[in-house]
Amino acid sequence: MPSFQNLPHHDSGPVFVPQPARRLGDEVPLRVWVPAAYPVRSLAVRVLQDGEPKVTELEAEDAPTRWNGQSGTWWHATVRMVNPDTRYRFCVVGDGERSLDYAWLTAAGVIDHDLADATDFRLVLDESPSWVDDAVVYQIFPDRFARGAGSPALTPETVPAWAHIMEWDEEPAAHGPSTAHQLYGGDLDGIVEHLDHVQSLGANTIYLTPIFPSGSVHRYDASTFDDVDALLGGQEALVRLSKAVHARGMRFILDLTTNHTGDTHEWFERAQADADSLEAGFYLFTDHPDAYEMWLDVPSLPKLDHRSQALRERMLQGPESVVGRYLAAPFSADGWRIDVANMTGRSGAIDLAHQVARDVRGTMRDVAGTAEDGRENAWLIAEHGHDASADLVGDGWMGTMNYAGFTRPVWAWLADPDNGLNWLGLPMSIPRLSGRQIGATLHEYNAHLPYPSWKHSQSQLSSHDTPRTRSVVGTSERQVVALAALAALPGVPTVFAGDELGFPGRTGEHSRTSMPWDGLAGVGPRASTIDREVLRATGDLLRLRGDLAALRRGGIRFLAWEDDALVLQRTHPDGDVLVHLARDAHAPITLDLDAGELLHREGGTEVESLGSETGAPQLRLSASGPGTSFVRLTA
Amino acid sequence: MPSFQNLPHHDSGPVFVPQPARRLGDEVPLRVWVPAAYPVRSLAVRVLQDGEPKVTELEAEDAPTRWNGQSGTWWHATVRMVNPDTRYRFCVVGDGERSLDYAWLTAAGVIDHDLADATDFRLVLDESPSWVDDAVVYQIFPDRFARGAGSPALTPETVPAWAHIMEWDEEPAAHGPSTAHQLYGGDLDGIVEHLDHVQSLGANTIYLTPIFPSGSVHRYDASTFDDVDALLGGQEALVRLSKAVHARGMRFILDLTTNHTGDTHEWFERAQADADSLEAGFYLFTDHPDAYEMWLDVPSLPKLDHRSQALRERMLQGPESVVGRYLAAPFSADGWRIDVANMTGRSGAIDLAHQVARDVRGTMRDVAGTAEDGRENAWLIAEHGHDASADLVGDGWMGTMNYAGFTRPVWAWLADPDNGLNWLGLPMSIPRLSGRQIGATLHEYNAHLPYPSWKHSQSQLSSHDTPRTRSVVGTSERQVVALAALAALPGVPTVFAGDELGFPGRTGEHSRTSMPWDGLAGVGPRASTIDREVLRATGDLLRLRGDLAALRRGGIRFLAWEDDALVLQRTHPDGDVLVHLARDAHAPITLDLDAGELLHREGGTEVESLGSETGAPQLRLSASGPGTSFVRLTA
Repeated sequence: MPSFQNLPHHDSGPVFVPQPARRLGDEVPLRVWVPAAYPVRSLAVRVLQDGEPKVTELEAEDAPTRWNGQSGTWWHATVRMVNPDTRYRFCVVGDGERSLDYAWLTAAGVIDHDLADATDFRLVLDESPSWVDDAVVYQIFPDRFARGAGSPALTPETVPAWAHIMEWDEEPAAHGPSTAHQLYGGDLDGIVEHLDHVQSLGANTIYLTPIFPSGSVHRYDASTFDDVDALLGGQEALVRLSKAVHARGMRFILDLTTNHTGDTHEWFERAQADADSLEAGFYLFTDHPDAYEMWLDVPSLPKLDHRSQALRERMLQGPESVVGRYLAAPFSADGWRIDVANMTGRSGAIDLAHQVARDVRGTMRDVAGTAEDGRENAWLIAEHGHDASADLVGDGWMGTMNYAGFTRPVWAWLADPDNGLNWLGLPMSIPRLSGRQIGATLHEYNAHLPYPSWKHSQSQLSSHDTPRTRSVVGTSERQVVALAALAALPGVPTVFAGDELGFPGRTGEHSRTSMPWDGLAGVGPRASTIDREVLRATGDLLRLRGDLAALRRGGIRFLAWEDDALVLQRTHPDGDVLVHLARDAHAPITLDLDAGELLHREGGTEVESLGSETGAPQLRLSASGPGTSFVRLTA
Repeated sequence: MPSFQNLPHHDSGPVFVPQPARRLGDEVPLRVWVPAAYPVRSLAVRVLQDGEPKVTELEAEDAPTRWNGQSGTWWHATVRMVNPDTRYRFCVVGDGERSLDYAWLTAAGVIDHDLADATDFRLVLDESPSWVDDAVVYQIFPDRFARGAGSPALTPETVPAWAHIMEWDEEPAAHGPSTAHQLYGGDLDGIVEHLDHVQSLGANTIYLTPIFPSGSVHRYDASTFDDVDALLGGQEALVRLSKAVHARGMRFILDLTTNHTGDTHEWFERAQADADSLEAGFYLFTDHPDAYEMWLDVPSLPKLDHRSQALRERMLQGPESVVGRYLAAPFSADGWRIDVANMTGRSGAIDLAHQVARDVRGTMRDVAGTAEDGRENAWLIAEHGHDASADLVGDGWMGTMNYAGFTRPVWAWLADPDNGLNWLGLPMSIPRLSGRQIGATLHEYNAHLPYPSWKHSQSQLSSHDTPRTRSVVGTSERQVVALAALAALPGVPTVFAGDELGFPGRTGEHSRTSMPWDGLAGVGPRASTIDREVLRATGDLLRLRGDLAALRRGGIRFLAWEDDALVLQRTHPDGDVLVHLARDAHAPITLDLDAGELLHREGGTEVESLGSETGAPQLRLSASGPGTSFVRLTA
């Protein structure tokens, strides 16, 4: 059983970095906790400054003390933030009597051999708006959420030729071209009318997939960025939504594809019509007008060429750009999620992805402001399906959709063994991995991200591009554990509309379920398909997160992992919180920590204080089945 | 005992990547070896193309076969090199009956959880000259190697005011300002006269630390780049050296500091004298003329500002630049080692390090040619004292001085427990770590480098900036094992002049020992201090490398590591070679491989073929003390 409670600890939360750097040159105080069970001779911090390592010894506080009931010593050092991305790590020099006589402490934990710098702790200048720390996101695929009460009925005469009108309670297709054309008719006024439901879950931020006119129900094939789709109510409806959302103190972010447009986009039509047009330079024609680069060889999605300064001005740069226009009044969006960010600006030897990200960030600064000018900045999220760390470099995307560091490890731990769902395009279904394997990914992979980027990434258990959580994990009980992970881990919890009902979905397309408003009211064909226990737990767990600064803004300490249990601690001056996640019954885990108030419990977990039999407080975590406990630790 | 012989294997050598990519768009065939002891259901390769993962299943050859006596199966796939740095990894899907049912195979080995992309295998366009694969470097600190027979005696009247003339056989100081001024009087003609010695060690390439006029014996504080120091014989002597070296089919590289100049440099003098001069823009004045950025706060080393295009033209770009001029006739240097490359171009928010590297590489292409134009390119090596992976990105430095991935792991494995030498500036002496710890660093750290960058980096056991090998390892026997590691591992073996004599050195400055030519001839005060066994072994092991394509050009497979043993295999179509390194006696290690010819043996190691008792060939490696064996494996 890997247990980490007796290892030295540092994280990037406010207990260990009480005054983060605000500008280059700042001296940043750092703390390290060294349990008494780990006798050390000395500690040093190695910081990279202009590419050169500099070593400084830490100083130990004179008196041993207790932290969360554990005996140990606080150590201190100060490092200077010389570069915008300043890396540091600690060297722990043992007392010569134990195996870890020589070890590095990085964001990946305590490692007893020399390792690359990729997981070093980092000081970065964090421009993310403060509200993102407290955000809980509800993701809406507009066509499937709700149709405004006053919106006219859909008829073949009033919808585009490509649209196939569906009954609201019909099940969407899981595969094939029809998935793009099954129109349910959800619109922006429908969202305005159901904000109570969103808020009842503890969510305070809405993420809308695209709202531009296009040739599909997903709208990732925009035909213009200058208007809001009339099917959704047009620009006026977006203004109404903005006002309604903001009136409740909520926020919303929009979705922009910087990688490509639709082939019906006005830019692409001009580009094809005239090889000498400005717009012809927006795309990557290999043989004008019919051969061009596209997204994954889909002809309806021609790829944009960000070497065109005119494109970047029109799309990314400044208040008049697409990015700027929707951040400004009257739309006043609070951020952008950038579709296919992992491919944006990348083609063969061309790689302008970071430039695109910096352009968008710069426009956000101009239009939405910065902490320094007293206005809130906007949030900038990148879609990224694998390792995003190389793209989260501080001055571009603020975070990612953290599939690699959240969704997939949680899935692979809680998966129904008979899920039958494909895994990453590999010749296998979603594996069921041990807590050790999952813990390693949660810890090591996320250690490659600057901590603010991890915190300000979206954690989602599912999205419009994936199977639904329920189809992955199989049972209500395991879905509640997954929701506990969503509430517990760093990252902005993001719930894909319909997941809170325990709905299934076997592909991204199949998961684009319409919301059963009648069912929620207890009538209609889907009333009985709603998992009321999951609905209750979603709200309880997300509101719990809202109540606890440690979950929203704290650092993270991994305490133990076994096949069927993950135990972690979120660290914060307002009170540390221990989280026990159990996917099944497991042997008790004993930790040398002092349990305070039980904050929340679901399913078959149990926390016992063992008191002072041994003189020191201990707590014992056990589980008779899937469940979770959140426990305040005694300072 | 971690043993890896039964894990699937792939590496970047020519057995597994028989036709490396030569240009973007190439389809690159890949092979994977799967031992019969590791039953798999399927294998897939994940390649990143324009930022998006693409998965392709591998195909197994119909018939199981043997490789080096081991039973197993070859699997095949082809991936397209879409980007200049194209990453790929394999997913190994087990048969459901073993622990590693789901694992990734990356350059860091077989890993049973999801991990970041940092150690993925990589396809890069390798511009390094072909001769670098076969190079064995002898590093010369010019002041300490030899004085030409015809050079006049040093007198206080003929040397600069800063110089303190030393007797040739005196021991250099280890610390303090005098170290920079102790002039022994070695010169370039002295090198020409001792090339036989260099060649006798199996070396074919000379690396000279700086030769420009300066204010010290190390010459890293150049006062001009337009001339060769008269103390060394001036430009004519460099031409003589170039001709002599090339006449023997040898090569030489020079040393340039792009990070700073000396404060007596003609550029800096002009810069200080005139704030409006072009040269004033070459430096980072914070308050002209007396306050400026410098290397590690040393006032005599003002830092260069590569934002100045005029500086980059004068120093880096084109045939007339400093970089270009010494690559061209009549000097015809074969490459550059760039001093302080890790800091070059980096200051606060400025980071032009990659631009500097690309500039130098571009000039090398122009002046020294490329494989495509039928000329040899030059070699470009970056000094880098810690993790260099972020700077080895394909289009800049070709390699680094691999302190992080070679010198330090070998030191920490073979260190004399009582070495008393400081480790990395940390509050500790060089630790003595286990083979597991060392193996992890050798494998994982180097997996962060593109393999051509690892192969074309310098491996050195010591340099003019470090203690000497002998002072680190303490004994002749362990120094021979260190030399075996030098010959065995990827990277260009580099011997710092004097190391082959078993000389001690407790600091970089103290290691700048003069060569005891009299002693080598059997006379003089230092004849008895020469370790003739180390001298013999240096030549034997480096020539062994010269004889074996697998050591020079092969891939690498780690087979086993224990506290006192490291076993690895170099893979090559001309014959695989197994290397057994023992730092001390250890229990026998048995491997399911078929040992052929014993190629070389030192010290207390023994290799036994166990024949066919079990039906399959096995070999047993044992050691009664420090030693090494090199064994050809039977195809």
